[in-house]
Amino acid sequence: MTRFTVSVKIVPRHGLLDPQGKAVTDALHALGFASVRDVHVGRLLVIELEAADTEAAQAKVREMCERLLANPVTEDFVIAEIATA
Amino acid sequence: MTRFTVSVKIVPRHGLLDPQGKAVTDALHALGFASVRDVHVGRLLVIELEAADTEAAQAKVREMCERLLANPVTEDFVIAEIATA
Repeated sequence: MTRFTVSVKIVPRHGLLDPQGKAVTDALHALGFASVRDVHVGRLLVIELEAADTEAAQAKVREMCERLLANPVTEDFVIAEIATA
Repeated sequence: MTRFTVSVKIVPRHGLLDPQGKAVTDALHALGFASVRDVHVGRLLVIELEAADTEAAQAKVREMCERLLANPVTEDFVIAEIATA
């Protein structure tokens, strides 16, 4: 078994309301950053796990996202990076 | 002015306690993902803004992180990606 570090981006599904992003946009405008047009706020998870190979690590993390980490109704996830630790 | 899309990763400073990451690790273990060793939870911000060029966009986003988006005591930020939208 090898130790892998897998990065996952979890972002609000495109087209859905993103109240947190709207709040950050408003706060940046209030601070004088008038050039900001839009902000999206997502989560970045870095998962360290043991797996036989890259494919197994990716499949395991995909299952974790589907069962726990991402909300399938409102969020999309992308496995951004897999590295051996 | 060009519209840029800038991605920023904001992560708990290395070595500091990450209670959210610990909670996710425990929840994954409880679900049977015994191979998980550690999880770090950070935020991913995607900021759309107008700027003269890539350098100006990057400098602006760096200032936003320092003034509002990242907590300088507990978090580190990395400007991960800059693209023209």
